[in-house]
Amino acid sequence: MNFAKPVLILMTLTSLVACAPPPGDSSATGPLVIQQQGSFAVGGKVVSTPGTYDNNQPTTAGQTFHGDHLYAFYQLPQNPKPLPIVMLHGAFQSARSWETTPDGREGFQTLFLRRGFPVYLVDQPRRGRAGNSTVAATVEPTPFDQLFFDQFRLGKWLNYFDNVQFDRKPETLDQFFRSVTPNTGPYDAGVISDAMAALFDKTGPGILFSHSQAGGPGWLTAIKSQNVKGIVALEPGSGFIFPEGELPPEMPSAAGTLSPEPVPLADFEKLTRIPIVIYYGDNFPTAPTAERGQDNWRVRLAMARLWVDAINQHGGDAQLVHLPEIGVRGNTHFLMSDLNNVEIADLVSKFLAEKHLD
Amino acid sequence: MNFAKPVLILMTLTSLVACAPPPGDSSATGPLVIQQQGSFAVGGKVVSTPGTYDNNQPTTAGQTFHGDHLYAFYQLPQNPKPLPIVMLHGAFQSARSWETTPDGREGFQTLFLRRGFPVYLVDQPRRGRAGNSTVAATVEPTPFDQLFFDQFRLGKWLNYFDNVQFDRKPETLDQFFRSVTPNTGPYDAGVISDAMAALFDKTGPGILFSHSQAGGPGWLTAIKSQNVKGIVALEPGSGFIFPEGELPPEMPSAAGTLSPEPVPLADFEKLTRIPIVIYYGDNFPTAPTAERGQDNWRVRLAMARLWVDAINQHGGDAQLVHLPEIGVRGNTHFLMSDLNNVEIADLVSKFLAEKHLD
Repeated sequence: MNFAKPVLILMTLTSLVACAPPPGDSSATGPLVIQQQGSFAVGGKVVSTPGTYDNNQPTTAGQTFHGDHLYAFYQLPQNPKPLPIVMLHGAFQSARSWETTPDGREGFQTLFLRRGFPVYLVDQPRRGRAGNSTVAATVEPTPFDQLFFDQFRLGKWLNYFDNVQFDRKPETLDQFFRSVTPNTGPYDAGVISDAMAALFDKTGPGILFSHSQAGGPGWLTAIKSQNVKGIVALEPGSGFIFPEGELPPEMPSAAGTLSPEPVPLADFEKLTRIPIVIYYGDNFPTAPTAERGQDNWRVRLAMARLWVDAINQHGGDAQLVHLPEIGVRGNTHFLMSDLNNVEIADLVSKFLAEKHLD
Repeated sequence: MNFAKPVLILMTLTSLVACAPPPGDSSATGPLVIQQQGSFAVGGKVVSTPGTYDNNQPTTAGQTFHGDHLYAFYQLPQNPKPLPIVMLHGAFQSARSWETTPDGREGFQTLFLRRGFPVYLVDQPRRGRAGNSTVAATVEPTPFDQLFFDQFRLGKWLNYFDNVQFDRKPETLDQFFRSVTPNTGPYDAGVISDAMAALFDKTGPGILFSHSQAGGPGWLTAIKSQNVKGIVALEPGSGFIFPEGELPPEMPSAAGTLSPEPVPLADFEKLTRIPIVIYYGDNFPTAPTAERGQDNWRVRLAMARLWVDAINQHGGDAQLVHLPEIGVRGNTHFLMSDLNNVEIADLVSKFLAEKHLD
C-alpha cells in the first residue's frame, strides 16, 4: 500500500485543525472561522428641504438628509445556528459594549460567535456610526466618569467593591471610560425600536440581547416585529411597560423616581409569546439606601420583578435572575464584559438551549 | 490494512478545507480565518472639573471626562503578514467607509484581511464610536445628499456619470448616504494625528491607508510616528503640507480655494523616508470647470502632483496615480468601495509588494 497520500492529508490537517473550534465549546480560544462579515444601515428616514438644488451654488435648498437609521456590523460563523443574536447597547455606549472587554478579553460578540451564532452588533440611531439624527443636538463634554463609576457599580468612587468583577488596573478603567460615546440627537425609544424592527425584517427570526437603557426599546422592538423570538435583557434600566390600567406605583429612589409606562394591552400581550430572561448583578441592596449609584438599581430590580410577574400573569414566559441569589457575585452593570463574562455567557447559553433558541 | 482512520480524516478535512483561503489569492471568497479580533480606544485626554465629587448628590464638580481618543476595531488573520494596515476614513464618514460597499460587496477591510494583512479600522476622535469630544459641538441635520452626490463624483445630480463605478440601484445610494455620520466636536487634524500616532505606538510598524480628508492627518501621523512605514492615500482632500518657504500658490476653484499648509522642513523631511502612493479617480477635468463637484478635485490633483514633486525633490519616494491615465475609468471619490474595488486593491497590493511592505 502507498501511505504517502494519507500522511500528506494528516500534515495538512494539522495546519488546519485549529481553525474550527468545536461548536458549543465555550472555552474555545482558537481562530474564528467567519463565513461572512459586513455592515449596513437599516431603517431611518429621509428629510427634504424645500427649494431647488443648484449643483454649482449649493445651499441646503432642494437637498435631502438620510438619518435615524441604525448601523449594524454582522459576522456569520461557519455552520451557523439558525437564529442570529442582535445585540443592542445601552446609554452612553455603542456596539463597543459587546466587543473586547475593558481589560482586553473577548466580549459577548466573539464569545457567541464561538458558540455558533450569527452576531449582529448595533449602533442605535443617533449614536456612534449611526450619528445622522434628523433632530439637532448639542454634544457637551459632560464630566460623568465618577458618576458612571458609582452608577455602573464598579464601587463607590474611588473605591472598588471588594468582590467586584472588574479588573483594577488603571488602563482597564481608562478603556471603560473611553467606551462612552454621546447621543448625536435626542434619545427616542420609538425611533430606535422602529430601526430595530427594520433590522429584524432583514435578519429574519432572531434573538435580541439588550443592555441597560436598551431594555425599553428592546420590548418595543419585540412588539413591532414578530421576528424577535426571544429576549435576553441585561440589567434593563428603562422602559418598563405595563398594560394600560395595570401600572404599578412609581418607585422613588436616591437616583430619582422610576415610572412604569403604559402600552395598549394588545401590545403588551405580544411580549407573552416569546421567552424572556432578565439578569441583574451584584452590590446593591433590596432595601432603600442613600447610596445613589446602588439605589438606582434597587428600584429597577423591583420594577423588573413586577414586570416579569405581569408578563407571566398574562400567559407569558419571563424570568428574572438576580445573580447573587444563584451564587454569582460581584457583577457590575456591564455583565457582558465583567471578569466572569464567560460564566454569564454560559447562563445565557443554558437559557437559550432550554427555550430551544439555539 | 485498516483504512477507517484515514477516511475519517478525509471527511473531517472536507469540512475544514474551505476555511483557509490560499494566501495572496485576491479572488478568495471562502470563509475568513481570524486569529484574533477586538477593539479598543487609544490616545486622547482626560479633562477635570474643579470641585469635590459628591457620590450621592453628583454634579459635574470633581468629575473627569475621557475624550479625544480614537476607536479601533482590529482583525488578525491566520499567518498574518508582518505589517498591519491601519485605515483612516474621511470627512462625514467612519470606519464604515472600509467595510461592506454600498452595493453589498466586500470592502477594503475584508479584502485586505483575505490578502493576509492584520487590519485596523479607525473611528477618528470626535466621530463615530469615538464620539467623546473635549470640545462641545452642535450636530445639525444638514441636508447635503445632493452635494455629496456631486462632490463625491457619482455624477451631476441627479444623473450618474456614464462610466461611473457605482451601482445605480436606489438601495445602493441609500446605503451610501447612510454611511454619513457627523463630527461630535470640531475637526482637528492635530488631535486626530496625536491619537493615530498613539495607535501606531500600540500596533508597532504598519501601513497607513487614508481617505479624503484623512490625507492631512495621515501625513501628520507619519511625522509624529516612525512606525508608519508606508502610506496609501486615496484621493487626499486636505492638509497638503509643504516646507516653510516652499509653498506653492493657492489654487482657486469653483469649490473654493485650496491652500497649501506650511510645516517645518525637518517635519516635511520625515515623509521622505517612507514610500507613499496617492490615487485619484475619474470624471474630473484637469482644466478649470464651472462644475463645482468636479473642480474641487481638479485643484486637489494638481496640488497633490506638486506635493509628490516636493517629496521627491527632498529625496523621498512618492508617486501619484491618476487612474484614468492607466486606463482605470469611472472611479468616484470612494475608490475603496467602487464597483472595481478589487482592481483598486490589486493596484495597492502591487505597490505594497514593490515597496516590500507585504
